[in-house]
Amino acid sequence: ADIRCAQDYEIAAQGTMSEASYAYVAGGTGQDLSVAANLAAFAKWSVYPRVLRDVKEGHTRVQLGAQTLAHPILLAPVAFQKLAHPLAEIATAHAAQAMESCIVCSTLATSPLEEVAAAAGSEKWFQLYFQTKREDTLQLLRRAEAAGFRAIVVTLDASIQVASMRALKAGFRMPEDCLAVNLPQLEQQKVELSAGASRIFQGMMLAAPTWSDLTWLMSQTSLPVWVKGVMHPEDARALQAAGVAGIVVSNHGGRSLDGAPASLSVLPAIRALVGQDFPLLLDGGIRSGTDVFKAIALGANAVLIGRLQMYALSVAGALGVAHMIKLLCEELEICMALAGCATLADIDANALLPHL
Amino acid sequence: ADIRCAQDYEIAAQGTMSEASYAYVAGGTGQDLSVAANLAAFAKWSVYPRVLRDVKEGHTRVQLGAQTLAHPILLAPVAFQKLAHPLAEIATAHAAQAMESCIVCSTLATSPLEEVAAAAGSEKWFQLYFQTKREDTLQLLRRAEAAGFRAIVVTLDASIQVASMRALKAGFRMPEDCLAVNLPQLEQQKVELSAGASRIFQGMMLAAPTWSDLTWLMSQTSLPVWVKGVMHPEDARALQAAGVAGIVVSNHGGRSLDGAPASLSVLPAIRALVGQDFPLLLDGGIRSGTDVFKAIALGANAVLIGRLQMYALSVAGALGVAHMIKLLCEELEICMALAGCATLADIDANALLPHL
Amino acid sequence: ADIRCAQDYEIAAQGTMSEASYAYVAGGTGQDLSVAANLAAFAKWSVYPRVLRDVKEGHTRVQLGAQTLAHPILLAPVAFQKLAHPLAEIATAHAAQAMESCIVCSTLATSPLEEVAAAAGSEKWFQLYFQTKREDTLQLLRRAEAAGFRAIVVTLDASIQVASMRALKAGFRMPEDCLAVNLPQLEQQKVELSAGASRIFQGMMLAAPTWSDLTWLMSQTSLPVWVKGVMHPEDARALQAAGVAGIVVSNHGGRSLDGAPASLSVLPAIRALVGQDFPLLLDGGIRSGTDVFKAIALGANAVLIGRLQMYALSVAGALGVAHMIKLLCEELEICMALAGCATLADIDANALLPHL
Amino acid sequence: ADIRCAQDYEIAAQGTMSEASYAYVAGGTGQDLSVAANLAAFAKWSVYPRVLRDVKEGHTRVQLGAQTLAHPILLAPVAFQKLAHPLAEIATAHAAQAMESCIVCSTLATSPLEEVAAAAGSEKWFQLYFQTKREDTLQLLRRAEAAGFRAIVVTLDASIQVASMRALKAGFRMPEDCLAVNLPQLEQQKVELSAGASRIFQGMMLAAPTWSDLTWLMSQTSLPVWVKGVMHPEDARALQAAGVAGIVVSNHGGRSLDGAPASLSVLPAIRALVGQDFPLLLDGGIRSGTDVFKAIALGANAVLIGRLQMYALSVAGALGVAHMIKLLCEELEICMALAGCATLADIDANALLPHL
Ligand SMILES: Cc1cc2nc3c(=O)[nH]c(=O)nc-3n(C[C@H](O)[C@H](O)[C@H](O)COP(=O)(O)O)c2cc1C
Ligand SMILES: Cc1cc2nc3c(=O)[nH]c(=O)nc-3n(C[C@H](O)[C@H](O)[C@H](O)COP(=O)(O)O)c2cc1C
Ligand SMILES: Cc1cc2nc3c(=O)[nH]c(=O)nc-3n(C[C@H](O)[C@H](O)[C@H](O)COP(=O)(O)O)c2cc1C
Ligand SMILES: Cc1cc2nc3c(=O)[nH]c(=O)nc-3n(C[C@H](O)[C@H](O)[C@H](O)COP(=O)(O)O)c2cc1C
Repeated sequence: ADIRCAQDYEIAAQGTMSEASYAYVAGGTGQDLSVAANLAAFAKWSVYPRVLRDVKEGHTRVQLGAQTLAHPILLAPVAFQKLAHPLAEIATAHAAQAMESCIVCSTLATSPLEEVAAAAGSEKWFQLYFQTKREDTLQLLRRAEAAGFRAIVVTLDASIQVASMRALKAGFRMPEDCLAVNLPQLEQQKVELSAGASRIFQGMMLAAPTWSDLTWLMSQTSLPVWVKGVMHPEDARALQAAGVAGIVVSNHGGRSLDGAPASLSVLPAIRALVGQDFPLLLDGGIRSGTDVFKAIALGANAVLIGRLQMYALSVAGALGVAHMIKLLCEELEICMALAGCATLADIDANALLPHL
Repeated sequence: ADIRCAQDYEIAAQGTMSEASYAYVAGGTGQDLSVAANLAAFAKWSVYPRVLRDVKEGHTRVQLGAQTLAHPILLAPVAFQKLAHPLAEIATAHAAQAMESCIVCSTLATSPLEEVAAAAGSEKWFQLYFQTKREDTLQLLRRAEAAGFRAIVVTLDASIQVASMRALKAGFRMPEDCLAVNLPQLEQQKVELSAGASRIFQGMMLAAPTWSDLTWLMSQTSLPVWVKGVMHPEDARALQAAGVAGIVVSNHGGRSLDGAPASLSVLPAIRALVGQDFPLLLDGGIRSGTDVFKAIALGANAVLIGRLQMYALSVAGALGVAHMIKLLCEELEICMALAGCATLADIDANALLPHL
Repeated sequence: ADIRCAQDYEIAAQGTMSEASYAYVAGGTGQDLSVAANLAAFAKWSVYPRVLRDVKEGHTRVQLGAQTLAHPILLAPVAFQKLAHPLAEIATAHAAQAMESCIVCSTLATSPLEEVAAAAGSEKWFQLYFQTKREDTLQLLRRAEAAGFRAIVVTLDASIQVASMRALKAGFRMPEDCLAVNLPQLEQQKVELSAGASRIFQGMMLAAPTWSDLTWLMSQTSLPVWVKGVMHPEDARALQAAGVAGIVVSNHGGRSLDGAPASLSVLPAIRALVGQDFPLLLDGGIRSGTDVFKAIALGANAVLIGRLQMYALSVAGALGVAHMIKLLCEELEICMALAGCATLADIDANALLPHL
Repeated sequence: ADIRCAQDYEIAAQGTMSEASYAYVAGGTGQDLSVAANLAAFAKWSVYPRVLRDVKEGHTRVQLGAQTLAHPILLAPVAFQKLAHPLAEIATAHAAQAMESCIVCSTLATSPLEEVAAAAGSEKWFQLYFQTKREDTLQLLRRAEAAGFRAIVVTLDASIQVASMRALKAGFRMPEDCLAVNLPQLEQQKVELSAGASRIFQGMMLAAPTWSDLTWLMSQTSLPVWVKGVMHPEDARALQAAGVAGIVVSNHGGRSLDGAPASLSVLPAIRALVGQDFPLLLDGGIRSGTDVFKAIALGANAVLIGRLQMYALSVAGALGVAHMIKLLCEELEICMALAGCATLADIDANALLPHL
């Protein structure tokens, strides 16, 4: 494949993944409205070039809580990576280690989380989905701790996930060998609904986490607990008050509520409310280093990469993912250099101009 | 047919209706400008996801005047349903009953209104068009009362209905067996216009209802009288003052004045003027449960569904209509759950963000 | 041809005119930017429907200076009508008479202005282009007066007219028999330019009228003198002060300055400056009766129709033009009726809502 | 070729240049976002026509520092003109002389700068890229001075130039005979990066000029020193304070930072900051004389033409370039005439209206 920029993996992956699998990864939920919104939100901004600035000491290092990362590009939790490559999360972890990136391993990984942790470098976080029973949640947490993950990222926005019409129309079905191996393989239990009860409110949402679940979780671990899937400024403020380590501003890549705003659109209001020092990550729609620059300018400390990760994995395994991260880093550095920013701290909203 | 969301009935119906009939239903008037505006108005808004909210007690019940409905999705008055299915309004009424939806039976039904009423459940309203002669109007009213309809919906925006160019170009003509069986079959009387008189002002508009007609009608019945087809805030205010039971904010699905605004666009100003407690319905352009959510967030108590009803009817009769309502309800509930709203009362304008 | 609305003549004319002639008429100047702008400006507005208003006494009469017209739809000066139909301006004049419309006969008519006047009804104006020599201008004026035209419309915006790329690409050349028969057939004189002189400023613009020319013209006639082609509010104000009878707000249908704003866009500011009582016409982009309504709502007393006139003429001669006017009138009346306006005086900016 | 307006050279060049070369010239950098932005920025504005103004004394002369130009249309520095025509910069220089235009000869010319200077008329400037070693920069400067160039234009925005995806996809490679003959042909030296160092910050940006380089350069010459590639108002202000002769507001035709704003978009803010009397040029996206008018209205004293130059050169050599300039001049004069502006000084922001 002829890969010249990170986004080229998107095109190349259409040759390496089946049409249905590609549709599943590329799609979001419903009509993919929020997938499109994520992309449009980046296109809305342009970046001011600056001249004659000295950036010879430039670097992309960033402090996230207690960790210092070489660059602000993390790998988002992406489930079922076997869909893209037989080595799945193990390959991704190797790439993360090679590129000094932090991997966030999904609860729905197709590889044992201990093996993912072993393959990853020192930066590795575990993404946790609340399980119906607290004991199951706790067991995942304990395994993640034991495996050496350094932070927990609780994803809050996926209580209900409707498939994308695009994936359905392409006939996607999860292959049999794509299993969430870290979860007990439960038989699909049929919830008995009483008459007049709603399949949604009294069914699917029964297991959805609430504030007390989060408080409980935080009391069970000494690892930093991040939350992922926050879009409303008031939620962000309340979570900050509840003591989370940081927040991932995210609409789940447009895979949760179809019609949710772009994550980038809500970022500035959230940053304004939580203050300059609170750790904020952003994901959703990042396809280039310039997009990373824009996210940081609008308030993110760092970003997570979802789909590009799967595309690169499918095209060239660990090498692909590493190369994709390298391209993003260089694109970011070029953008910084031309925008006269030697460090991430130099990037702020004044670097951007909204499109006419 | 492969139906995964309510809007899929739109696509499926293109296989079950003739091209001309589909164009007639899908089209509006003239260049279909207001049909397009209705859809665009919903696309303009996105919905904020919220996290960790407890919605286990969630439901969609709504109070409309004296009636309590299980959900806020009513069936709009849609004429000539035989176009879509031989069982026509009877099938629709059965579906309404099954799904606890309120049917609004059109004056131009192709089934006797008494039979529609008998097939419907307890929630059933009658949509009334003023007839040229008050005695004809009165007779319709009396029949509706006798048949057990629980409210009258007077449609005010259809004094003139120009066909859609799209329907004309598709060669649509109303089939002979599609008859407004509840009206006396008058011979087309040719109005004699005096010289210099306008075919519009002194012709078609002669029979158009005015304020005194409405007052008269309200004096003739003890049923609640709703009005449908209101778009201007001042009209809404005057109608509220005149004592109507509630208002349906509607541009007749883009079938009345080509170039009328989207009904959703005018809703907030109307709600602002009539106050929080006055019953407002909205129709026009609703294609998903998320659209229902948006309408409620912008001021509606409940909504009416027009075209989707005809599409589902054509695809699978009563079953289709029932299924379509069920899909809309679930889509609404999913949207509510992800937006952290347990009841309709929790939905307000803060739940929405205009698109960039 | 299957004509259901005035704009259908646009489509039909593509079957009756040669491709090159159609491109010439449909095009504007340069890249046709202002042609597109004219259309877009109407699409930007929607019209509020109103309910229960009594319009039984409705009419479309309008007072323009000393004249009362049955409706506000005039025929714009359109040159070289032989391009569209052998009977050319004579056919158009007959149509105007039949439909009680006012024709504005172009200086560049392909029929003798006296014959046009004779074929027209009582409402007829003459559009005057300043000629290089005042004596030629004066001769045209005297003939127009003698022929019974009741007003002079001086077109000010056509000192330079660059062809439309579209027409050039379609290979359009004015046919030999399309002659401006009311002008002396001068040999193309080559203006001798001194060294360093500009072919534009010291060439084409030499003959362009200036303020003193207009003052002179007004002193030569007792007919009301309108000016056409005004777009800037300050020009409008100055012309009003100079004593013109009225102004035609127009960008020459996008045929003068490519990149000029839509005429509708500048209308409100002009109306604001000249006050409520000063006669303003608008042309440019009107394709339906609803467009006429919008123009009036934004400040016009009446409108002129350019291209639709040529299209209808080409499709069906005098009958076509008459039918086109009739359709526009009815479309206007329907729009008025549904917007609750019984007379043109009832139409104002409150009747419109800008599109979201 | 059938050339009717300056932009027609763009189309014609697609027949005379190879697909790859055309893509290289037409493209910018990355996804060509800023190329598109440049064009869109002009389309956003419309120009007010004015009537009855006397422009018989009109001209397009402009004072730029000490020089008076016959018109405000300069030839931008464009590298590697052999790509378009064997006579390359020599042909361009002849055209400039013929049309009294000022040529800005690129550091990366494929002809000896002395020969370019000899072929050009009295107006000729030299565009200077800082070289890695000051002695090389100085040598270029001395040669330019000796050759008679009357100003130096230091381009500041091209420290890093990523190819356009479009050019890469078209398989473009610089032909062997396209050499920057004015530079010593260095072997590609491989910069040794220490571990952890960035190929961008500690590699490519090492040679990027900083403020002290500019100050040094200005101290070395008595020629006026312009800077090119300025987009941020604060940079413009600082450069003015540093004593540059004037500024070229430019995003390098979208070939530097992909995602930079349109140069036209930032022009008004820059003009506001540097005051009315400071010389400002603009380039980027100019395709017609009306675009020149708009640039001047928004604050430029004159403009530079990049791509059109290469297109015309490829279509018809010196004659093509001369003809292209002539067309632009006439288009500008026509726009001025119709907008009622006799001189460039008459053109200001009041002449423009933003598109609805
Ligand atoms: C195929 C796929 C699987 C995903 N699985 C998870 C998951 O298991 N847990 C989670 O928190 N987010 C998951 N996400 C969301 C990502 O973490 C991330 O929020 C999103 O992909 C970012 O948007 P982008 O793909 O545009 O970069 C998944 C996304 C995709 C595309
Ligand atoms: C085919 C068709 C027939 C209709 N007939 C009636 C009618 O008889 N009476 C009425 O008040 N509204 C009628 N309407 C309007 C609907 O009640 C409703 O306002 C509209 O369809 C809502 O827009 P939607 O189709 O986008 O949901 C009709 C609409 C359609 C599409
Ligand atoms: C083919 C053609 C010829 C025209 N000739 C004249 C003319 O001779 N004199 C004049 O004042 N305007 C002339 N116009 C402009 C019209 O009077 C009018 O301003 C314009 O057509 C209105 O825009 P519309 O075509 O969108 O209705 C002409 C327009 C067209 C399309
Ligand atoms: C093929 C090409 C080569 C260029 N080479 C140079 C150059 O050597 N030096 C420079 O300062 N600008 C260079 N530019 C930028 C132009 O000077 C100018 O800024 C740009 O082309 C203006 O935009 P336009 O092409 O839309 O007119 C180049 C542009 C193009 C298209």
